[in-house]
Order: sequence, then structure tokens, then C-alpha cells
Amino acid sequence: MKELTIQETAEMLQKLEDVHILIHRTPDGDCIGSGYSLQAVFRQLGIRSKVLCDDPIPKRFHFLLPEEPEEDFEPKYVVSVDLAEEALFGSLKEIYGGRVNLCIDHHISNQKYSEYLMCEPDASSACEVLYKIYRVMGIKFTEQIAKCLYTGIATDTGCFKYSCATPEAHIFTAEMMREFPNIRYDLINREMFTVKSRAQLQVEIEMFRNMEFYFNGKVTLVWATLDICEKNGITIGEMEGLTTLSTQPEGVQVGITVREPKKGFYKISMRSTDSVNVAEICQRLGGGGHVKAAGCTISGTTDEIRQTLLKAVESAI
Amino acid sequence: MKELTIQETAEMLQKLEDVHILIHRTPDGDCIGSGYSLQAVFRQLGIRSKVLCDDPIPKRFHFLLPEEPEEDFEPKYVVSVDLAEEALFGSLKEIYGGRVNLCIDHHISNQKYSEYLMCEPDASSACEVLYKIYRVMGIKFTEQIAKCLYTGIATDTGCFKYSCATPEAHIFTAEMMREFPNIRYDLINREMFTVKSRAQLQVEIEMFRNMEFYFNGKVTLVWATLDICEKNGITIGEMEGLTTLSTQPEGVQVGITVREPKKGFYKISMRSTDSVNVAEICQRLGGGGHVKAAGCTISGTTDEIRQTLLKAVESAI
Repeated sequence: MKELTIQETAEMLQKLEDVHILIHRTPDGDCIGSGYSLQAVFRQLGIRSKVLCDDPIPKRFHFLLPEEPEEDFEPKYVVSVDLAEEALFGSLKEIYGGRVNLCIDHHISNQKYSEYLMCEPDASSACEVLYKIYRVMGIKFTEQIAKCLYTGIATDTGCFKYSCATPEAHIFTAEMMREFPNIRYDLINREMFTVKSRAQLQVEIEMFRNMEFYFNGKVTLVWATLDICEKNGITIGEMEGLTTLSTQPEGVQVGITVREPKKGFYKISMRSTDSVNVAEICQRLGGGGHVKAAGCTISGTTDEIRQTLLKAVESAI
Repeated sequence: MKELTIQETAEMLQKLEDVHILIHRTPDGDCIGSGYSLQAVFRQLGIRSKVLCDDPIPKRFHFLLPEEPEEDFEPKYVVSVDLAEEALFGSLKEIYGGRVNLCIDHHISNQKYSEYLMCEPDASSACEVLYKIYRVMGIKFTEQIAKCLYTGIATDTGCFKYSCATPEAHIFTAEMMREFPNIRYDLINREMFTVKSRAQLQVEIEMFRNMEFYFNGKVTLVWATLDICEKNGITIGEMEGLTTLSTQPEGVQVGITVREPKKGFYKISMRSTDSVNVAEICQRLGGGGHVKAAGCTISGTTDEIRQTLLKAVESAI
């Protein structure tokens, strides 16, 4: 594995051909914005590319997809974006495991699985890293590219709320707002952060009411179980933005959200509101992520999950 | 009334003496940030000043207050900030009505009640207007001034979510982040947008469950009544950030929040999610504000309030 600079990455991207772009399973704004902005950039350069993801792209991100149909072809190169480890390829690991030529990322927990790596852990998002690369490449920004990058930066920073919102993220946004004043940034934000279906609101109300408090309210546990979702006629996949609930009560240091995508199998999201390093905690549980936003997966009964999580968190608070 | 440019306002501020700075009743981040940043600027210039408000400053804004005690003195000049009309002086209108020398504002509905006016309706916030003025004045920015202005800009833009978030608001933030990297912008945001007491969460859950939908879900009505608050041991004044609830359901065009600070007296907040001009609607009801965020006050029974509001909104959707 060789680490590249922004400049070297810019040069490498221009030389690629027939590229498969990988993004992580349960895709979010940052990997989707990264993947499809890179595809638009490749198109400008006359390079054929295709974005691949183990899960379908959620509807609310469909405005970022290209109008042109994507071609099928055998890749000569594989580039992964916002993808910290091969486990997050999902079932695509069978095809692409050990085959990634270049990874562009911002996770401090990046597992260095690629031939070349451009990783900036201080960047707000993979989209911010790509923005810097595109600037060096002299790419002509388009509305499509601006929307992709804005969505990635906005979603990964909680709309500039979190400590990962860098000055560069704000400068990028100001530049895009001036260059593309007709993009409805407010409607993108509404779609990403505010709008909820009535079923989703019902589930959230129920989750709030069942929220568990531990260690004098320093830790919260919020459960999005299959039962609650089914009762309200919604799938776990449609329940986005859930992780923001757990940190709302006053005094919370670590907010834990437990999703149950299938019976007895749990996806954990941990959020730190101040000084606790949740990446470390999640790494001990076999996961990873950022200092203030990390995750892992566990199996077991709800009682076992609760015990495992509380034990893992206890020493850190 | 004479309208001033940024340059003229900068020159005028430097010549003032013994200034009373007025901010609006039920103070928010923008008027508090405006008032106390201006006081800090006056202090740099050796000009005595005092901030006055008809209501107490809520606790979560106390970090913006100066450490030095404020002096009492008879004002030679009165400056109002973020104050669109004299009705919003509250009881201070008896003393200061017709006496404001300079008003610095960003409300399109400004009633031009002052001798001199600097109003930029395209600015995100009064704090953004002040930031431009301070730059022209050559003020040395301090952590205190940066926190005040950041808080005003962040709160008025919903942390850069709304259409009023200008490129200038982002540039200012990038500049302050570079100049004062030690300010915990993320903790300010957490305090402003995320943290809620358990009582507040209980009230919100109840408000969500009682949310009313009209005109095929295009209009929502959310009630924060005295009864609900009292039942949960919280005052209406402590229920901040309520207006964001009404626009969360999918398809909402106008979200209306009704607060009842005293029995039978209602404060209305209207939020537009897209094209409806709520400033116009609220002006017809005797209030005012911005195109996408406005308010008014009404008296009557809840049934009368409901009818009045729905009738006022009906033609606009």
C-alpha cells in the first residue's frame, strides 16, 4: 500500500480507464455524493465508469444519480470512495476484495486494503477530499458535481453542526452557492435533515418514549427494533437520521442507537457529544469509524447486546 | 428616516457616546449575539454601552454575556439591533418609543421607526450585517465577538440549513474557525440545536402526537399550550426550538406553531418550507418577519385561533 498526496491522486485519476467505483453498503450522502461526483468527473475526462453498491440507493438521494444510463463493462481499475474497510463492501467483497487500486477516504480507521490510498482524516467527508482533488485537476464544476459534493459534506457534518465541519467545508459551500445560486440547497437540507414520513415520526416518538438512560444519563440507548418498525409499516432501511435522537437529552456523553435489520442481528451507531472517543470503543467491538461517530455490528439477544454495549462504554465515561 | 450604507453605519457607530442597545423581547440568538457583539465593539472604542431587553436572556445564551458588570447610565444615543418594529420592544417601548437613533436589521418587514436605518433583507441575520460593518470599521475580532456573531448566524439559518444561509455567512464562519480554532463551535451548535431537557422531550413527544394536519397535509398546527407545559413542569419560555417540529412531516408547505405564554393569548410562528410567503400572511394578522419565517400574536379561544389561522393560510397554498 502506498499513500498518495492530493496532487498524486489528481494525476492518477486522469490516467485511469474503465473504472468501477465502489461505495459502502447502507449508503449515505457522503459515499453517494463521492461516487456519483467522481463518475461525473470521469465523464468529463472521457473515462468510462460505473458506481457499485451492495445496497440500493435510497430514494431521497436519487436526485444525485446521472440521467444517462450506466453501462456494464469489465473494469480495468477499481476505485473505492468513503470506504474504510473491505467488510463494508458487503457481498461485493467476493468480486472486489483485494482488487482495489485506489481508495479515497477520510476515516481515521481506514484499513489500508488498497494498492494506493489518499486518506485525510481531518477532512469533514470524502466529498471534501474529492473537492480538493478536483480543484487540482482543474475540473469544470457542474450543478451535478456541486450537488453531489454539497450533499456529502452537509450530511457528514450534520449540516455544519459537528466538530468535523472544517473551514474548507464552509469555503466550498460559499463557492458553490456563488457559482450555482439556482441550486436549492435549502431543499436538499430539508430532504436530508428535516422531512419525515408519518410512519417515521410515529416510530421516532415510540423510540423516544422507550429511550434508556444509564450512568446518570451520560449514556442513552435507543432501540429501533424490527417489531417497532413493522408495527408502523416501515422498514429499518427507511428509518434514516435515527442517530440524532440518542444525543438530544441534556447531559448525554455517548448516544447509542441500535438498529435491528434482521431478527437478532444488530447494527450499532455510537455518537459522542464531547470528549469520548467512540471509534476506539467500536473498534474493540469489531467495528470502526470516527472519533465522534462510529459503529459496529453485534448478534445476540437484546439483553446480551445491552450488557456488551454498556460494558464497552463504561470505562470511557 | 434616513437609510445608511454599511460604510456610513460604520462611521456613525464610531462617533456615538453612552449608548443603550435595544434587542427584541423573547430574545433569540441573533438579537443577543448582535447586542453583545456591539457592546464588545463599543468597549474596544472606549464607548460606554448597555444592552437592554424586555425579557431575561435565556440561560443557554449566558456564555455570550460579558464578564464585566454592565453600568447604569442615561443614554445619549439609542441603537436597536435585529428589531423590526417598536411593538417588539415590549414594555421598553414606553421609554424608547420614538427615541431610536440607529437601527441595524435584516427584516424585510422593518417598520422604519428609527432616525437612521441600516437594513439588509438579503443578509442571513443581523449578526451578518454587523460582521460586515465591523470589517469596515477595522475592529479587532475577539473570541467573544466571534462567538456572538457565530451564534446569531447559526441560529437564524438553522445551522446553515435554510435558504437565508448566504455565502457570506459561510465565509464568515470559515474565517472565524481559522482565527479562533479553539472555540467549540460544535458545542455551541449542540446547545442551540440538539440538547433538550427530559421535560422538554416529553412536551415535544406530546406535541408531535397531537399535531394537526390540514389541506391534505400541506399545513400543520402544533400546539404548545400552558396545560401541556405545566403538566410536564416546564415553562413556555424554556421550550425553545419548537418551530422546527411543525415542518418535519413530508409534504408540509406551512408549519404553524402556537405557543400560549398566558391563558388565551397566543404567539404564532409560521414556517414556509418552499414557496409560500409567510411574512405576508403574518402581516395580515398584525405581525411580520421573513418570507420563510414569520410570526404574530392573537387572542381568543383555541377554536377561534384555529379558524383564523387556517383562513389566513388557505389562499396561499
